[in-house]
Amino acid sequence: MDSNSNLENNLGLEGPTNPMVSPLLTDLYQFTMAYAYWKAGKHLDKAVFDLFFRKNPFRGEYTVFAGLEECIRFAATFKFKEEEIAFLHTILPPTCEEGFFDYLRGINCSDLEIYAIPEGSVVFPKIPLIRVEGPIAVVQLLETPFVNLVNYASLVTTNAARHRRVAGSSKILLEFGLRRAQGPDGGISASKYCYLGGFDATSNVDAGRRFGIPLRGTHSHAFVSSFMGPDEITDRALPRSDGTGVCEDFVILTQHWLSKLQASDSLRGTFSETSHSEMAAFISYALAFPTNFQALVDTYDVMRSGLPNFCAVSLALDELGYKAHGIRLDSGDLAYLSTQAREFFRGIEKEFGVPDFGKMPITASNDINEETLDALNKQGHEVDAFGIGTHLVTCFAQPALGCVFKLVEINGQPRMKLSEDVSKVSIPCKKRCYRLYGKDGYPLVDIMTGENEEPPKERERILCRHPFNESKRAYVVPQRVEELYKCYWSGISGKQRESLPTLNEIRERCLRHLAEMRPDHMRELNPTPYKVSVSAKLYDFIHFLWLNEAPVGELQ
Amino acid sequence: MDSNSNLENNLGLEGPTNPMVSPLLTDLYQFTMAYAYWKAGKHLDKAVFDLFFRKNPFRGEYTVFAGLEECIRFAATFKFKEEEIAFLHTILPPTCEEGFFDYLRGINCSDLEIYAIPEGSVVFPKIPLIRVEGPIAVVQLLETPFVNLVNYASLVTTNAARHRRVAGSSKILLEFGLRRAQGPDGGISASKYCYLGGFDATSNVDAGRRFGIPLRGTHSHAFVSSFMGPDEITDRALPRSDGTGVCEDFVILTQHWLSKLQASDSLRGTFSETSHSEMAAFISYALAFPTNFQALVDTYDVMRSGLPNFCAVSLALDELGYKAHGIRLDSGDLAYLSTQAREFFRGIEKEFGVPDFGKMPITASNDINEETLDALNKQGHEVDAFGIGTHLVTCFAQPALGCVFKLVEINGQPRMKLSEDVSKVSIPCKKRCYRLYGKDGYPLVDIMTGENEEPPKERERILCRHPFNESKRAYVVPQRVEELYKCYWSGISGKQRESLPTLNEIRERCLRHLAEMRPDHMRELNPTPYKVSVSAKLYDFIHFLWLNEAPVGELQ
Repeated sequence: MDSNSNLENNLGLEGPTNPMVSPLLTDLYQFTMAYAYWKAGKHLDKAVFDLFFRKNPFRGEYTVFAGLEECIRFAATFKFKEEEIAFLHTILPPTCEEGFFDYLRGINCSDLEIYAIPEGSVVFPKIPLIRVEGPIAVVQLLETPFVNLVNYASLVTTNAARHRRVAGSSKILLEFGLRRAQGPDGGISASKYCYLGGFDATSNVDAGRRFGIPLRGTHSHAFVSSFMGPDEITDRALPRSDGTGVCEDFVILTQHWLSKLQASDSLRGTFSETSHSEMAAFISYALAFPTNFQALVDTYDVMRSGLPNFCAVSLALDELGYKAHGIRLDSGDLAYLSTQAREFFRGIEKEFGVPDFGKMPITASNDINEETLDALNKQGHEVDAFGIGTHLVTCFAQPALGCVFKLVEINGQPRMKLSEDVSKVSIPCKKRCYRLYGKDGYPLVDIMTGENEEPPKERERILCRHPFNESKRAYVVPQRVEELYKCYWSGISGKQRESLPTLNEIRERCLRHLAEMRPDHMRELNPTPYKVSVSAKLYDFIHFLWLNEAPVGELQ
Repeated sequence: MDSNSNLENNLGLEGPTNPMVSPLLTDLYQFTMAYAYWKAGKHLDKAVFDLFFRKNPFRGEYTVFAGLEECIRFAATFKFKEEEIAFLHTILPPTCEEGFFDYLRGINCSDLEIYAIPEGSVVFPKIPLIRVEGPIAVVQLLETPFVNLVNYASLVTTNAARHRRVAGSSKILLEFGLRRAQGPDGGISASKYCYLGGFDATSNVDAGRRFGIPLRGTHSHAFVSSFMGPDEITDRALPRSDGTGVCEDFVILTQHWLSKLQASDSLRGTFSETSHSEMAAFISYALAFPTNFQALVDTYDVMRSGLPNFCAVSLALDELGYKAHGIRLDSGDLAYLSTQAREFFRGIEKEFGVPDFGKMPITASNDINEETLDALNKQGHEVDAFGIGTHLVTCFAQPALGCVFKLVEINGQPRMKLSEDVSKVSIPCKKRCYRLYGKDGYPLVDIMTGENEEPPKERERILCRHPFNESKRAYVVPQRVEELYKCYWSGISGKQRESLPTLNEIRERCLRHLAEMRPDHMRELNPTPYKVSVSAKLYDFIHFLWLNEAPVGELQ
């Protein structure tokens, strides 16, 4: 059945962002299993798989779910190319029958249904993020790409949300991680998902183009040291911002302002001679971007060179009707330097009567992470915007999330993965999941039930049980009940499915969800775990099945 | 000048592996700087940039350089598309002049020269890995993609090399990381570079297709639990391996062997009833892959179910002339279980006279990293092959390498980046680098000299100085001198350039280099730092320049 192009056209979905995500981007064992299922005549058995994680990252108690759109786009366009089949031919043993390759040629996701929690939701361990139902061989082929597409996306979104929380909502957060990301795609997805998790902009031009994320950036240290001095600036004219005239020599104007600063009472003694190379670079940058002048001020010495040079150029620009955009600090004691810079700016506002000069925006970068943000907050600082790279995009504090994809039902029979480690036991059955809200509007507990159980009702008492610890249970009277799953893919069955929201809509959901959580679940130090539970019926069933399947030990 | 397609054709180079690597995959500030250079008439200034890192990763004292081929392929095909120019138009201020976009339309890497240490070499901090020379605006545009392409590649290759070193050369190492990698491309490059660093195979089918890396994989826990019991197996016939007949009921044959094992003297008491679901899965897998039967034995209980089931199927296969390929353990105490399994296999070899059954290959996976490998070695184990995922591909122990790209010369003038932190000071000048070998054949020290200095000579004494610590210096009489840079890109100048080696050639270089190093540099605990030095002349010049550029402090 070749209904794939139909699927695509009807739903208007393109493939995944990265064209390298193909049906071959998976583990070999998905194909050896597919062959074994096919050979056993079992490939059409109807399976239900849950995608979930077992532990929140970053020693926190929450996770933001991301990556769903990429999974759905992958499923929507899943189809083997002839050259892919040819490659599979070369890697499977020659004993494999030709019919299997014909079978692969024909498959797509038209017999699948995919239910998921909306992307951008705050989610918790054990609760399946995605439930995939369909012929077992096809569903297994999706395992590796789905887990790959969700793991890093959710991890880095969560990391961004955590950085936002520590930085506070009033700060501008810029993602600067492309050069340190784990590969080009790590960079592109990092930019997308950091924006989703609450960042304001990125330095990654291609991510700006692909996803409409605001872009930010000025210049590097190399730009500064590529200049020898103002003598090399030949074209020195700069029109006034209102077009009423032209300053014929912006270099002279700037040098004039530098002398004024050197002679000023309030700034006297903070600096003497500044770097000529840096001054030339700043002037050149201002001549190129008079409306967007922002300067990196730490190439030589922030207080003795960068800051006075920046202020001289800014004051010259101001005289011509332009407003400078601020400084970036990329080394040293950011709390101290930002405070000193603020004082310097305020001194100038006062002495030279330049309105708002004291509010000059200060951006800080250089190995910033959750802890340095927290330390800066405790010390006090005057930074308005943070550029964050390495720690953010590589998720330095914990570079992997452990999403797994487990079989929970086959042909209507519940299945569970046993393990001596209780945290690794999976919860069987095709399930429904609900979020129960308390009186004060906060989410109280998530609960999983069997597919056919009555849903929890608002203002009706329900018993919520820990899935594996019999003593942990509580009655809850939810003020609001939210069913977590929506149908995001229903093959060609015609069943109503959710349309995929835009990145900005997902971002808004994420920010709303984060804001709605009870603060003690969200704090950095010793956060309270959010409760995840099962219904009484599901609890009994899990433990019946467990006893049934686990071998009885013999002590010897 | 549109000589780009010529370049490509002449050199036969394709673009980077990931089609998402484009001239827009860079930081915005590269474009704002390019505009400022262009506006200042400085864009053609001849710059020399060094790409290097400052600290070896993983608390080690060596790094493997990787990612060069991708950089060269990027440079060879670097060219803006019209839609990329159109996008840049929308993000740069409207004050930017049209001539700049025309300039961008025309640029490629035909005026650049790129020198580098060969990919796969063992390298050290401060020594530039790549030196790029050419018009400053173009060279800056390469910064972000080059650093991105080298950082993760070198990091994960080094991580693979470290895992190989701890595991020992006799073990089979399998990269199983795709599902946990940081995005799809993280997965594909991880597979490539882990192979480069000494792994034997990957589970990633697409990496196998792209790079010719051997593929490995069998089945998952879901495969096991998707079966209810042997009753559901309908097609039970299996031909003998030599084609001399057919076993009509392989299920019965296996059950017969299971009874024999249950009744055996040597194995008595180790198990009673095994899982039917698991037995059905193993039989089905063997029927599908009689020549490649390998089984995951820990879905229920390794000793009480997985191992006896595996052995029953293997003995049945053996009776038909097939040889099983071994087991995989994915949980529990891998040292203990592998030892128990080995004993079980040996018991069977002895009791049933099956040659080599005791040597049945044992593969182990489950959160393996350098430390667990080391702990397994210390405890003693019987594992023949390790499947390593999360820790390997995400470089969990240190998920980022800090490669930087610094301006060292412009228009023939040496430049250096100062910093209050000596480790961040860059070494100015266009340089040459050499590796000096001692009497015993080990590399002794790397030395950087000015471009025009006499190269060090074999058996002639030379003074090697620490670049920043005046008291650290030593005379060396090298037995062999190796110049580290080769020319990998020379635009259209026609200068002889190195052809790019194949992945297997790079891998061989890497393994040879690793083997050549003095063992104390390579050990995990407190390794000896390898020495990196500058010539006496370069030392003097650095310190002359430093004093010249650094502002003199004033204590107040």
